[in-house]
Amino acid sequence: MGKCANHPDRETSYMCMKHDKYMCEECLECPDPEIHCKFRSSCPVWFMDKRGGKNIDDIPDKPEKNRFKVVFMPDNKDVLVEENTTLLEAVQAADIPLNASCNGKGVCGKCKLVVESGMVESAPTPLLNDEEKRKKYVLACQTTVQGDVTVKIPEEVLEKKLRIAGTGKQVTEELKGMVKGISPMLSRIPLELNPPTLEDSISDLDRLNRCLKKSGVDIDRMNIGIKAMRGLAGAMRGEDWNVTVSVVKKKCSSEVLEVVPGNLPANSFGIAVDVGTTSIVVYLVDMENGSILAATSGHNRQAACGDDVINRIVCAEKDGVSKLSKMVLSTINGLINEAINSADVDREQIDNVVISGNTTMTHLLLGIEPRHIRRDPYIPSVSSFPILRAEDIGLKVNPIAAVFVMPSPASYVGGDIVAGLLYTGLHREEPLTMFIDVGTNGEIVLGNRDWLMAASCSAGPAFEGGGVRWGMRAEEGAIEKVSIDPETFNPVVTVVGDTLPRGICGSGMIDLISEMLLKKIIQPNGKFSIDSTHPRYIKSGDEHAFIVAFANETSVERDIIFTESDIDNIIRSKGAVYAGFMVLLNQAGMDFSMVDRVIITGGFGQFLDIDKAVTIGLLPDIERSKFKYMGNSSIAGAYMALLSEKYRKEAIEVSNSMTYIDFSSNNEFMDEFTSALFLPHTNMEAFPNVKAAIVR
Amino acid sequence: MGKCANHPDRETSYMCMKHDKYMCEECLECPDPEIHCKFRSSCPVWFMDKRGGKNIDDIPDKPEKNRFKVVFMPDNKDVLVEENTTLLEAVQAADIPLNASCNGKGVCGKCKLVVESGMVESAPTPLLNDEEKRKKYVLACQTTVQGDVTVKIPEEVLEKKLRIAGTGKQVTEELKGMVKGISPMLSRIPLELNPPTLEDSISDLDRLNRCLKKSGVDIDRMNIGIKAMRGLAGAMRGEDWNVTVSVVKKKCSSEVLEVVPGNLPANSFGIAVDVGTTSIVVYLVDMENGSILAATSGHNRQAACGDDVINRIVCAEKDGVSKLSKMVLSTINGLINEAINSADVDREQIDNVVISGNTTMTHLLLGIEPRHIRRDPYIPSVSSFPILRAEDIGLKVNPIAAVFVMPSPASYVGGDIVAGLLYTGLHREEPLTMFIDVGTNGEIVLGNRDWLMAASCSAGPAFEGGGVRWGMRAEEGAIEKVSIDPETFNPVVTVVGDTLPRGICGSGMIDLISEMLLKKIIQPNGKFSIDSTHPRYIKSGDEHAFIVAFANETSVERDIIFTESDIDNIIRSKGAVYAGFMVLLNQAGMDFSMVDRVIITGGFGQFLDIDKAVTIGLLPDIERSKFKYMGNSSIAGAYMALLSEKYRKEAIEVSNSMTYIDFSSNNEFMDEFTSALFLPHTNMEAFPNVKAAIVR
Repeated sequence: MGKCANHPDRETSYMCMKHDKYMCEECLECPDPEIHCKFRSSCPVWFMDKRGGKNIDDIPDKPEKNRFKVVFMPDNKDVLVEENTTLLEAVQAADIPLNASCNGKGVCGKCKLVVESGMVESAPTPLLNDEEKRKKYVLACQTTVQGDVTVKIPEEVLEKKLRIAGTGKQVTEELKGMVKGISPMLSRIPLELNPPTLEDSISDLDRLNRCLKKSGVDIDRMNIGIKAMRGLAGAMRGEDWNVTVSVVKKKCSSEVLEVVPGNLPANSFGIAVDVGTTSIVVYLVDMENGSILAATSGHNRQAACGDDVINRIVCAEKDGVSKLSKMVLSTINGLINEAINSADVDREQIDNVVISGNTTMTHLLLGIEPRHIRRDPYIPSVSSFPILRAEDIGLKVNPIAAVFVMPSPASYVGGDIVAGLLYTGLHREEPLTMFIDVGTNGEIVLGNRDWLMAASCSAGPAFEGGGVRWGMRAEEGAIEKVSIDPETFNPVVTVVGDTLPRGICGSGMIDLISEMLLKKIIQPNGKFSIDSTHPRYIKSGDEHAFIVAFANETSVERDIIFTESDIDNIIRSKGAVYAGFMVLLNQAGMDFSMVDRVIITGGFGQFLDIDKAVTIGLLPDIERSKFKYMGNSSIAGAYMALLSEKYRKEAIEVSNSMTYIDFSSNNEFMDEFTSALFLPHTNMEAFPNVKAAIVR
Repeated sequence: MGKCANHPDRETSYMCMKHDKYMCEECLECPDPEIHCKFRSSCPVWFMDKRGGKNIDDIPDKPEKNRFKVVFMPDNKDVLVEENTTLLEAVQAADIPLNASCNGKGVCGKCKLVVESGMVESAPTPLLNDEEKRKKYVLACQTTVQGDVTVKIPEEVLEKKLRIAGTGKQVTEELKGMVKGISPMLSRIPLELNPPTLEDSISDLDRLNRCLKKSGVDIDRMNIGIKAMRGLAGAMRGEDWNVTVSVVKKKCSSEVLEVVPGNLPANSFGIAVDVGTTSIVVYLVDMENGSILAATSGHNRQAACGDDVINRIVCAEKDGVSKLSKMVLSTINGLINEAINSADVDREQIDNVVISGNTTMTHLLLGIEPRHIRRDPYIPSVSSFPILRAEDIGLKVNPIAAVFVMPSPASYVGGDIVAGLLYTGLHREEPLTMFIDVGTNGEIVLGNRDWLMAASCSAGPAFEGGGVRWGMRAEEGAIEKVSIDPETFNPVVTVVGDTLPRGICGSGMIDLISEMLLKKIIQPNGKFSIDSTHPRYIKSGDEHAFIVAFANETSVERDIIFTESDIDNIIRSKGAVYAGFMVLLNQAGMDFSMVDRVIITGGFGQFLDIDKAVTIGLLPDIERSKFKYMGNSSIAGAYMALLSEKYRKEAIEVSNSMTYIDFSSNNEFMDEFTSALFLPHTNMEAFPNVKAAIVR
C-alpha cells in the first residue's frame, strides 16, 4: 500500500511498475481488464501490479511442497511440479510454447487450458464465459495444481507457424545483391608455412605471424589466447606445416582463436538473427558468396513471460535474467538447428553471427541486467557491444564464432531499428524519410543523410493481439483482411493459411475498424451505432460487440466478436503512434507535407492495407505513393552486417548519430495523443480523403 | 634399435634425445657415467636414452597392480603407490623436494635414500659404495616398491634453503631507485559517476566510458568482457555511482576486467618472479611506491624431474606438460603465500605479475608444448607473449591479475637474459660488454647500444653439482671457498651456513681446481700428479681422487672426495663457456682486448672468485677491474618490468633486436671447445698471468 502520486491523501494498492509510483483508482481511468498506468500513452509500462502494491519480486518463495505430475495433451508431454504451482508455471517448466500476454497477471485471458482430469484450484475470473467454464476451460495463470493433472492445450491457444516477413526467395536474392565484398569478423585463413631450419629458427608463433602478415593481417595488433598457444606446436606439425588459423577482427585488434592442422576446406557459414519480442528469425548464410541457405522462424519462448518487454523485464527481476536468457537461447538454438539440418551444414562451420534485437531483447539474450530500462530515467546497461564469443553467450554454433550485436541507441530504440536503417539506407540518402516499425512499441525514426531523430511510443500489444478479446498474432487461423458489405454488414474475411478463423490479427483489426467506421457500424469516437437488433450485434457482459464470425464459421466453434473496448484499445494504440509522428515532426520544425516517404517495416506492416490504416488515423493522409513497405528490415540489416565490416561500422555510426527524443516526459506528446483518440483524428482537416469517405 | 648415424653398418640402441639420431658405442666417447652425445659440447642435450633406442614416451603404460604405502622419514609423510613404482616416482607423488639430477636415469647418483623397513627391489649400481650399501642406501630411481615401505631421506640429500642472490635489503633499495614513474598493466581506477537523468540517459557502459575518458583512458581502444557487462548495472548503483574499474592495458587495446561498487583503497601489489631451472625467487612489490615488501625463494619442484631443461622437457613428453606446469606453479604459489603472509597483504590485492625465466621454464609454466626446443632445429613454440590473466595460467593471486611474461629471443636464450639486460642496461650504453649467466647452460650476450649478439653453450650441470660425485648446489653445507696449503695440501674451506660440509658447490669446485693446479696436485690436463702415498690421495674405483674433507670433518660422516672425472667434467663445462666467448667475439671480428667490461650475473657468480675462475680458464685473463658481478639480474629486470611499461616495451625490443648465434651447428665452436679442454687453455699466451703463476 502507498499514497497516490496525484492524491497524497488516498491510500492505494496500485503501483506502476515503471514509475514505481502508487496511484488511486480514480487515476486509473481505463475500463480495460488490464489496468493501465494513467500515463499509459506516454509510458512504455502498461501493466500494474495488483498484489497489494508490492513489487512482484518482494513476494517470498513458497515453502517446500508435494510434487505432482502435469500431463499436457495433445503432445502427451509431462512435467513434475510442486503443489500450488500454477499451470502457467508448469507450462513454462515443460517448455511448451503458450502465449501468456500479461505474464500471469490474470488480465489478458490468453492462457486458456482445458482441464481433462485431476485436481486444480482456480481463482474466479470474468475472462471465461459460461460455455467455456462448462467445457472446463481455465486460465493457466489463475489455476494451481493440487494433484496429478492432465490438461489439454486447446486449438486456439496453440502457437502455430508464424508468417514471417522477409524469408521468401525473392527477398534473399535481393539481399544478396546489396552487399559488395564479404568481410567476416572471423576468418579461417589457410597457411602453408615454411618448416623451420637452423638458419630460420624463429618460434612457432613468430613463424605463424610472419605468414599471417604475408596474408595481409595486421600482426602488430594481433593477440593470441593461452589455449591456442598451448596447442600451437602440435597443430603446426600435424599436417606438414599446413595450418588453418581462425582470426577474429575486433575493435582495434585481432586475435588468433584457434590453429588447426591442415588446410580446411574454406566453407564457412554465418548466422543472422532477428530477436523480436514476439518472433525470432534466423538466416543461415554462406559466407563465401552471401547465399541465404535457410531461413527459419519461430515464437520467442519468452512469450510465456508476457507479451511485451516490460513484462519480460519484470519476469527477469523475479526469476533471474538467466531464465529469460535461456528461453530466448533455446528458441534461437532450435531455429539454428532447423536451419543447419535443412541446409546440411555442420554446426562447427558457423563462425560468424550477427544479432539484431531491441534493447531489452539484447540485454536478456546476453544475460545483462535489464531492470533499469523500465525505471525512470530508463537506462540500458550496455548499448554498444564488443565482438563476443558464441560459447560465452550460449549460442550453439562453433564455440569460437564471433558475434556482433547490433548497437542500441536508447532503452526503447534498439539494434533492430539500427539494422532497419542499414537495410533501408535512409541515412545515406537525401529524401526526408519517416521510418516506422510498429509492434508493441512503435519505433519511429525521422531524418535523412544529414540528421536522424528517433523515438518510441508505447503502441501497446493491441496490434499483436494483446488486450483484444479475439486478438492474436498473424498466425494460421488469424483474420488478416476484412471487408464489410454495406447493406448486410456481413464481413468477407481472408484468413492466414486459408483455414477457418480462430482470431483476428493486427491488420484484420485495422481493416475491421476502418470498415466499421466507413459502413457506420461505429462512430468516429469508436462507439457503436449499429442497431441492437442486428444479427451481428451482441452484448458481451456490459459491452457492445460485433460478431465477426459466427461459431459455425470458425475452427474454435465459438463466435469471434469485436467489442467496444477492443476498439478503444486499438484507438489508443494508433493514437500513440500518430502522436509520435507529430511530436518528431514538430521537434524538427516540419510537417507531413515535407516528408518525402514513409517506410513501414516489421511483420505487422506486411499485411497492412495502407488505405485502411490511414482511415483509422494510424498513418497520415498523404499521397499513397510515398508509403513503402520494406519487410523485416531487422533481419535484412543483420544479414548485411554479417557479411560486411563496412555495415558493422556503419551500424555503430548510425547508432551514435541518432538523437533520441524521450516521450515519457514530454507534455506535447500527451496533447497529441489526446487529439488522436478519434477516428481518424480530432483534426479531420489533416485527413481530407478520409473525411470525404466518411461524409459520403 | 637403429643404425649409427656415423656408421650406417652398425646397429645400436643408443639414441640422442635431441638429434633423434642413433649412435654406436664407439661414437660415444665420453667416459662419464652419464652417456653424452658425441657433440655434447655443442649440443644442449646431454642425456641419452638407454632403453633399446626407444623414445621414452613410446614405452607402454604398466598394467594395474597392487598398491603399497611408502612412508618418508623424518617428516612421516606417506603416499600410496602401485607395485613396482620406483621410490623416485613415490617421492614425486608425495611432493617431497628431492634432487634427481638425471631424472631417474640412474646415472647421477643423487637420489639416495635409506630403506628403513619393507620390501624393495634395487637394480645394481656402481654409484653406491660398500659402506653405503651396508647402511641400506639405495638410489630412489633404481629401486621399486614391493610392499609397504619406510624410507629415510638422508641429511645430505634433503634440499635446504638456497642462498639466493639479490634479495638483500641493499639490493631492493637500489632497485627501487632504478624505476622512475610507475605504470602497471592493470590499474584500479576509482570513478565518481554522475547519476543518470532523463536528460542524460546514456547507457551504463557509455557513462563509465565517458568518465574513464576523463581519467585519461583511451576508450576508443577499450574492450569489455561479457562478465563485466553482466554485473555492470548492479556495480554502478551499488555504492551511489562510485565505482572502481580494473583496466588492463594490452598490446594495442585496453580491457575493462571488473567493475566493483565503491572506491576501493588504492592499495595494489605486484609480484615479480624469477623462474630458474633450479631455484625460484619471488618479490612482493607495493605498486604505489615500488617498495619490495618481501622476497622469498625456493627450489623449483621440477628438480624431481631432473637438473636441466632437457630432462624437464623429456619428463613433460613422458608425463604431460601439465605435470611440470603444476610442479613449478606449486613452487611459485607457495613462495607467493610466504611473501603475502610475511607482508600481511591480501592475495586479491595482487593485480600485476611479471615472470622471467628461460625459454623452457616459460613454456612449462604456461603449459605450452616444449618438445621442439630440444630437437633440431630447436624451435620454441612461443617466444613473445600477450598479457595473460593470472587465473588462466594458475597463479594464485587476484584471478584477473595481468601477467607479463618476459619474451625469449631463442630456445636457449630466454626471458631471464632479457630481464638481465633490462637491469644491467648494457644495451643502452656505449661500452662493449660481455654479459654472462652461468648455470647449466651458459648464456652469453655480447654488444652495446648499437648491436647485440647472444648465444648459449651447454656448460652442463657440473657447476650446479650435477655429474660431480660430491657436487651440490650452493645450499647449507656446501663448500663454497677453498684454499690449499702448498706444503701439507690441507684445504681450508668455507661452508655455506657455517656448518660442517656435506658437499661442494660450483664456486668451491672452481677454487678447488684452481688451488690443485697452482699447488701442482694436478697438471694442466687435469690429471693427478699427487703422490699416491699422500694421506689425501685415494683411489675410488678405477679413479684417482683427492680427499677434500675427511669423514670426521663432515656432517655426512663420509669422506668428501674430488675425482679425476669430476675435474674432467668441470674442464668440459668451463671449456664450453670459454669457447662461447671466443666464437661470439670472432663473429663480431673482435677479441677480448676490445671488451670494456664483463658482467657476471646469476646465483653462481655470487660466490665466484674471479682470480680462480681465470686460473682454470673459465674467465679470460684480462684486467680484473673489468669484471663486475651484478647478482640476480633476472629478478631485478622482472621487478623493473613490473613497475614500468617503458621496461616492458624495452624487453620486447631487446628480445627482437638480439642476433642469436647457434653453436650446435657451428664447427668453429667445436674447435674452440677442444682448445679450451686444458687448464687454463691450450693457448697459454692468452692467460699470461695464470701462466706466470703456474710457472712460479
